[in-house]
Amino acid sequence: MAYKNLSFENVNINGGFWEEKQELLRDVTVKAVYNRFKETGRFDAFKCDKNSKIKPHIYWDSDVAKWIEGASYLIKKSPEPELEKIIDEVVCDIEKNQLPCGYFNSYYLTLEPNNIFTNRDQHELYCAGHLIESAIAYYEATGKKKFLELILKYVDYIEKRFKIDRDTPFATPGHEEIELALVRLYNLTGSKKHLDLARFFVCERGKNIKEGNFIDWADSKYSQSHDEPKNQHTAEGHSVRACYLYSAMADLALNDNDEELKVACESIFDDIVNHKMYITGGIGSTYLGEAFTVPYDLPSEGAYAESCASIALIFFAQRMLNLTGEKKYADVIERILYNGFLSTFSLDGKSFFYVNPLEIVPKNHTRHASVKNKDPLPPMTRFEVFECSCCPPNIVRFLGSLGSYIYTYDDMGIYLQQYINSEATFNIGGKEITLTQKTDYPKNGKISLTASEDVTVYVRVPEYLCGENTPTSGYIPLKLKANREQTIEFEIPTMLVSASEQVKDAFGKVALVRGPVVYCLEGHDNENELFGIYIDKSTTFRYGYNEKLNVPTIEVDAFVREKTGSLYAQFNDSYKKTKATLIPYYAFANRGENQMQVWTLVK
Amino acid sequence: MAYKNLSFENVNINGGFWEEKQELLRDVTVKAVYNRFKETGRFDAFKCDKNSKIKPHIYWDSDVAKWIEGASYLIKKSPEPELEKIIDEVVCDIEKNQLPCGYFNSYYLTLEPNNIFTNRDQHELYCAGHLIESAIAYYEATGKKKFLELILKYVDYIEKRFKIDRDTPFATPGHEEIELALVRLYNLTGSKKHLDLARFFVCERGKNIKEGNFIDWADSKYSQSHDEPKNQHTAEGHSVRACYLYSAMADLALNDNDEELKVACESIFDDIVNHKMYITGGIGSTYLGEAFTVPYDLPSEGAYAESCASIALIFFAQRMLNLTGEKKYADVIERILYNGFLSTFSLDGKSFFYVNPLEIVPKNHTRHASVKNKDPLPPMTRFEVFECSCCPPNIVRFLGSLGSYIYTYDDMGIYLQQYINSEATFNIGGKEITLTQKTDYPKNGKISLTASEDVTVYVRVPEYLCGENTPTSGYIPLKLKANREQTIEFEIPTMLVSASEQVKDAFGKVALVRGPVVYCLEGHDNENELFGIYIDKSTTFRYGYNEKLNVPTIEVDAFVREKTGSLYAQFNDSYKKTKATLIPYYAFANRGENQMQVWTLVK
Repeated sequence: MAYKNLSFENVNINGGFWEEKQELLRDVTVKAVYNRFKETGRFDAFKCDKNSKIKPHIYWDSDVAKWIEGASYLIKKSPEPELEKIIDEVVCDIEKNQLPCGYFNSYYLTLEPNNIFTNRDQHELYCAGHLIESAIAYYEATGKKKFLELILKYVDYIEKRFKIDRDTPFATPGHEEIELALVRLYNLTGSKKHLDLARFFVCERGKNIKEGNFIDWADSKYSQSHDEPKNQHTAEGHSVRACYLYSAMADLALNDNDEELKVACESIFDDIVNHKMYITGGIGSTYLGEAFTVPYDLPSEGAYAESCASIALIFFAQRMLNLTGEKKYADVIERILYNGFLSTFSLDGKSFFYVNPLEIVPKNHTRHASVKNKDPLPPMTRFEVFECSCCPPNIVRFLGSLGSYIYTYDDMGIYLQQYINSEATFNIGGKEITLTQKTDYPKNGKISLTASEDVTVYVRVPEYLCGENTPTSGYIPLKLKANREQTIEFEIPTMLVSASEQVKDAFGKVALVRGPVVYCLEGHDNENELFGIYIDKSTTFRYGYNEKLNVPTIEVDAFVREKTGSLYAQFNDSYKKTKATLIPYYAFANRGENQMQVWTLVK
Repeated sequence: MAYKNLSFENVNINGGFWEEKQELLRDVTVKAVYNRFKETGRFDAFKCDKNSKIKPHIYWDSDVAKWIEGASYLIKKSPEPELEKIIDEVVCDIEKNQLPCGYFNSYYLTLEPNNIFTNRDQHELYCAGHLIESAIAYYEATGKKKFLELILKYVDYIEKRFKIDRDTPFATPGHEEIELALVRLYNLTGSKKHLDLARFFVCERGKNIKEGNFIDWADSKYSQSHDEPKNQHTAEGHSVRACYLYSAMADLALNDNDEELKVACESIFDDIVNHKMYITGGIGSTYLGEAFTVPYDLPSEGAYAESCASIALIFFAQRMLNLTGEKKYADVIERILYNGFLSTFSLDGKSFFYVNPLEIVPKNHTRHASVKNKDPLPPMTRFEVFECSCCPPNIVRFLGSLGSYIYTYDDMGIYLQQYINSEATFNIGGKEITLTQKTDYPKNGKISLTASEDVTVYVRVPEYLCGENTPTSGYIPLKLKANREQTIEFEIPTMLVSASEQVKDAFGKVALVRGPVVYCLEGHDNENELFGIYIDKSTTFRYGYNEKLNVPTIEVDAFVREKTGSLYAQFNDSYKKTKATLIPYYAFANRGENQMQVWTLVK
């Protein structure tokens, strides 16, 4: 029951909630990230100047490559000569500095030319993977071949060293990424060797247990090297690395009809969404190793929930959606889109979270009265750039290709996975069909569809509406007549949601959720200490609007305990009534340092 | 309104709750600590053998000194030739290795003889302070003068270097202790120079702000060097260092009638008990610097609450009690005695906590699935010895001198501060009076008193009974007739206690307290996940007994939430009834690694 995916190339997001975000990307974010990267030397690093004062870091190539990938998506949709010029310069630098064998990595060429492919933890293959993806994207956006050709040469060199000669001290990358990049390359080139190399990197992993212990403080689970991927059934280790690997596994399962990998992917995905995912769709519960931990370990203030991990989980979910045709994967994408992904960048598009906490208690940052260095975590505001700046360009490339996540299709028709105002062009059974989706979602649940031909559109029922009356598949079939608008309207319920009683930090608490959007309390909107607020379980929901933030608000009835005078006193179960105001989680931390919480007591 | 303190020398604890503990001290603990110290080389370190394989640590002298002090208290009460022999050997080693100038410190003499008194953070004056206290105790126990004489010579050398020549690069100790030891020495010798040196060390502190920044990661508050002590009004920095300083300040306030120091002490004490003290009497809310933090910052799982800090707070409270005559200080001593002090050692007397958490979640220790080194904190069981082993011998010396905390007196009569079965001898207005206190407290609140002469005994009303009908002073005067027993009986109420609504980790929760004893839940006695238990606010209390632990238990009605199947689901406010069983906090962690919590949800 596999779906085909409709690429963003064939989808224009032209209005509504997400067009605004894409406009912000084109007008502000892509340039903001470029400027920070330029200032910090990330672009000049491609010149491989040994005399430069600024020394490249091992992951800088990947930062720039992700930015190029994102910029290419913008170029693909409409010309951006300025961005193109920047990219051409990078390509020129790569051409100049690439070794005759094909190798390119600005860090190693500049600082450690004799240590190429000697250290599994040094991100060379990870950087290579991002260079592959950016070269593909730039070629597809501009038709210019040079970048792709340079990278194809590099890929041949990687194949030679790792797969043919096998003369490197490690067999697979410490940080996955190249695996899925190679499948994507295969989809472009049709060259079997690219798919084979992807499979090689996926399937060699975990064969040599010793290889897994390449980092002092972590064990082989950290890099998903504890077993062969086909035998892995739980999500383990560094959450971004993990989801890149799982994405490649799903790719291979689809391409090669590999049932073992499919079963492993299904089981890993279920482990994530049933045990290890925040209500925001964030994953990775610990700073230590930016990693998955154990089931139900979802600390709020201590959440890691890296921005890149949210994006990586979307990659994994989309592949699983295509592989299985099961709607639950699209549900998870929606959860991440409106929460854990949107939270990663500021409303002005200029600054970014690496870590996306579910609770912020500013006082905790200054509790160590006699210690000089205050706790830096969790971050209380977004930053314009960070030393390890993998997330901002990942946001750029994901948002630039958001169109790819709206529709899938097969011979039966079109599957509408996300309610996003757009115009899409399909080729189904040799026939070109244009589909127009008009919606203000998530403001309301009205979706109007018009197709240029008769076609059945299967509309996904949102996860929060699924119940006894939902079709088994979770999709409502709409038989559209050519050029005749048809409308479907979902209720957008507001509800109090609780977590499993095994989640300690959410115990006895609720999150307020409206449709797909998780809300949170911020100190700015509430005079009471947030952790002391009880939402009234019988509250009504009063909808409002925050003009400054330009986001909806919800006011609820609440209680706080009567103040006690002393530090300890006989328990007195008395409360006073109050109100609390919530904003969408994605809009938090846009007004300076501030209390915030997603999970709130209830009574 | 100052009291005189009745020393343990004149008090025999002869039955009831605390005699058991003192017997355990004499039979087990003092030897257990000796054996561990001997094994680890702490005793042999006094030989200052440069060729020894084991290198002394900078605080080892203080470990042994505290043990000697405790052993001396036992010797004082009844002969212990074996302990005396051990101590005489140590004294012999000190005599052999002491420098002609009087200096003695096993670490410096063995490893860094050229760096004496050059580094404020190296605990030399702290070790000296403990040597002073142990020499006094040993002299008072045995009448043997040698140890005291050696130490008096050392004190003269310290006076010369720090107060007369002032040729050391720092003026006051990085870790306080010598200040109160010198006051104690003055009380023995009557020599003004000892009191003056104590005052010197107290009052020089904070005069040179630069001196406060002797540790990279901490600021001057860490060592209470941010201002002159007379200007300090909040509890700051390393909590043990702080309370040793505050104790010395109170000593000086009493000896010199120093109103400024008295006011500072009162204000600091209030800051502790109103803002910075756990319900167990523990203090120091952070591992970072083992320090006081900010008001109401009392994390449960993250509690530090060092054993030595509990003892240090008793020292401070006792001095404040004597200085002011206010009962609230005796209340705090009682709170610590039955909770934060008793929890520091195992029921078998052989192992010890350095850190006394209010919550243990074993799962959190293994949550980092892919990280090799698991979180060591908070400790889940007591240890026989630790590298920094200041606490075990501190427990020995405190418990050995527990008799000193039961009574105070003045010309008006006797003040019964703690309900501890004992026989005490007073000299009031030249008349010797023997007072017998019979009680099973805290099992029940019945106290029977018999005195050998007519005397008024002022019995402290327990903090938890104080209300409108309590005399203003908080003491009930009992006019005893010679040799006629009189009985007073306090109710021992069981109640649910809540913390200030500003304490995040206790919010919406209660602690169960019976009389002075704080109870806790342990996993062993409860099948439900502890954090998911709600105590029924209308519960009755069913009293039981745990034969294995030999401690009382209390069973309460409780609720748990109905289990939900999925990780997130619409809030459903449904519960099922259950029961929960609590044991005294002091008995926790005596059955292996285990969940534990003091603060429990309530509804």
